[in-house]
Amino acid sequence: MTPFRLDEHYADELDRQDPLASFRERFHISDPDLIYLDGNSLGRLPKLAIERANRLVQQEWGESLIRGWNEEGWYTAPERVGAKIARLIGAQPDEVIVADSTSVNLFKLVVAALRLQQGRTHILTDNLNFPSDLYILQGAIELLGHQHHLDVLASPDGIHGPVTRLYDSLNEQTALVSLSHTAFISSFTYDMAEVTQAAHKAGSLVLWDLCHSVGAVPIKLNEANVDLAVGCTYKYVNGGPGAPAFLYIRRDLQDRLRNPLSGWWGQNHPFELGLNYEPASGLRRFLTGTPPILSLSLIEPGVDLLLECGIDALRARSIRQSEYLILLWEELLKPLGFTLNSPRDAGLRGSHVSLGHPEGLRIDQALIHEMKVLPDFRAPDTIRLGIAPLYTSYRDIHTAIMRLRQIVTERIYERYSTEPPSVT
Amino acid sequence: MTPFRLDEHYADELDRQDPLASFRERFHISDPDLIYLDGNSLGRLPKLAIERANRLVQQEWGESLIRGWNEEGWYTAPERVGAKIARLIGAQPDEVIVADSTSVNLFKLVVAALRLQQGRTHILTDNLNFPSDLYILQGAIELLGHQHHLDVLASPDGIHGPVTRLYDSLNEQTALVSLSHTAFISSFTYDMAEVTQAAHKAGSLVLWDLCHSVGAVPIKLNEANVDLAVGCTYKYVNGGPGAPAFLYIRRDLQDRLRNPLSGWWGQNHPFELGLNYEPASGLRRFLTGTPPILSLSLIEPGVDLLLECGIDALRARSIRQSEYLILLWEELLKPLGFTLNSPRDAGLRGSHVSLGHPEGLRIDQALIHEMKVLPDFRAPDTIRLGIAPLYTSYRDIHTAIMRLRQIVTERIYERYSTEPPSVT
Repeated sequence: MTPFRLDEHYADELDRQDPLASFRERFHISDPDLIYLDGNSLGRLPKLAIERANRLVQQEWGESLIRGWNEEGWYTAPERVGAKIARLIGAQPDEVIVADSTSVNLFKLVVAALRLQQGRTHILTDNLNFPSDLYILQGAIELLGHQHHLDVLASPDGIHGPVTRLYDSLNEQTALVSLSHTAFISSFTYDMAEVTQAAHKAGSLVLWDLCHSVGAVPIKLNEANVDLAVGCTYKYVNGGPGAPAFLYIRRDLQDRLRNPLSGWWGQNHPFELGLNYEPASGLRRFLTGTPPILSLSLIEPGVDLLLECGIDALRARSIRQSEYLILLWEELLKPLGFTLNSPRDAGLRGSHVSLGHPEGLRIDQALIHEMKVLPDFRAPDTIRLGIAPLYTSYRDIHTAIMRLRQIVTERIYERYSTEPPSVT
Repeated sequence: MTPFRLDEHYADELDRQDPLASFRERFHISDPDLIYLDGNSLGRLPKLAIERANRLVQQEWGESLIRGWNEEGWYTAPERVGAKIARLIGAQPDEVIVADSTSVNLFKLVVAALRLQQGRTHILTDNLNFPSDLYILQGAIELLGHQHHLDVLASPDGIHGPVTRLYDSLNEQTALVSLSHTAFISSFTYDMAEVTQAAHKAGSLVLWDLCHSVGAVPIKLNEANVDLAVGCTYKYVNGGPGAPAFLYIRRDLQDRLRNPLSGWWGQNHPFELGLNYEPASGLRRFLTGTPPILSLSLIEPGVDLLLECGIDALRARSIRQSEYLILLWEELLKPLGFTLNSPRDAGLRGSHVSLGHPEGLRIDQALIHEMKVLPDFRAPDTIRLGIAPLYTSYRDIHTAIMRLRQIVTERIYERYSTEPPSVT
């Protein structure tokens, strides 16, 4: 590799040399001038998903009709797609199932875990966790009669997880540790094995939310002896907007946990239509109602691409690209008041890099509306640049950084309002 | 209309004369020889849904990318599609929202209702209710600490709802009446207004499951002063396999109920990313996680067709067609041991007609595998013939009855196993 340079030709050289560069062609990219750095919110459309969608609608729904449940594999899709996701996250095929949304799955697992951990009253989490996770934890506590306490440990700097505080807080009262593996704003990523081991030593269960790491960061649930996990499929997994989520339960726990959302898809013999709920054995008991087959089936092309590429190769590229981005930041943006709001150490970071700026909101608006760059923004001041290593190019990164620079040096952001838009 | 006759030409005459016959052309029907009488399980594919799916995948996901949440109306889709469904069920636009599955929505509403009805301990339901509803009720009771009792009232004859028993059971202990409007096996349909009024007189809330009536039976939630309802969109609404469900909450109750699945989509200002759950006002608080946009958006073409046709016209056709079916049954099938397992009175029936036969399972198998007729079967002996008045033809009905007859007179069913197939 030639030594680091700031110009765009160097970015192009990196693109030419990168062994994974050709995966970009597997995605539908209609406008090559659009710099998409929000794959950490909604992944791009795999070309294979277009064909799959056509087949799903016309042939499977339109022609197989009700027979699709058997003949097109709809009935077993939660397990089939789950087994593929299992390979991305270091779990056994029968330890992962696709169901509902991340928040609904979190509710199911949290309630089940707290009922198993009778007598233990504390749940540990942190203030880097995705807010929906905190809301679900609060709701579960309220529902179970306020016998539990939620300790939201504060990050020491708003970037790194409160690791020391977490270890200090673990004790015989801890029922559950519930954390995001990669933090949605700062990209801080916990050492899953270490935290899980410490929690287990205190007799606690551990639940990881993998939304911001799955598909970009290697995850080894079995190796880390993780109890429970949830995650979404519409970010780095490229499953489509709002595609159903997944849940993981370590095999030996599966038959000890009860799903509070005890619907017929979790019933032992649902088509016997018995009047009393009898949970199926294994993970299927954590299903509830009929799943949205079109959205569920369209997860598969994205997972297949990740499996074809291999998660370790992807991670290596993600690190190469984020380090390149950070070098550019250091030279070109830091002098303009941009801060690095992610850990500097790649080992502590997921696959997005967050930059702070006092004018972050207006800069973000300028990027989107004038510069054809799509990052995303998280209040109060953070611009997240998501590196989706299957399709993000070095040239994308270079262009985004140059345009960020231009927006500040030419004060383009001043054309925009300091009021946040209604939805982002 | 010419007098009733048993031959197929009479069926063709009825098809030619029926003012709604042309709606059939709005559906993708690739094999005109296939007699599809399972629209009460999975509705057919509207042609418009094919175009919509293409646009959704390529243009909205593939090209709008993350901007789709605003620019393609994904963020407001739960309300937008909900407001259209409201027009099918006699509710205000802000009283219906699309979310999750029927079972998950039922859980949310049941738990919220029981918490509102402090001090009342009984839930009334019946054994005609869809099993998943009973399982969800059982799960909610278990979760709330077994302070509630579920009374599953028995139908007097396995066909009609236990109306008298229900009225006799209502008292100051009744917290909630939870029933299927149309029963999934027998097609018995409650008088929604009468039951709701009786329950209200006793101080109970009422929750109707509309899965087997919505899109085929007129429903007037406001007129009947109904408190709560849930329903699916993949049967007579033609929303696609496993398409998301909807929930209804009467406006004055909305801000008094708390969603136990308190995820970020129900948060007041979700993008402020606050650490504490504060429910949105109105129905949005009953959302939980990110919805599956592809499956959700594809509900719309089916709803639009129903609205275009008008539910009263549809109901009239459904009754014309079911009466025709029952006349054929009486002449051609009753002598062969088929029983009518639905109410004879059209006013007490939904849009499917159930026929029983001691060899029901094997007859069903023969229909599917040799006769190109797709009904469905419910243990122990019931063949359900679903009339989806948007596309079922009189000729479909005639052919199905003739083939049922042939299967029995020629003992074709004897080729099939008495063991149920793994999934149906």
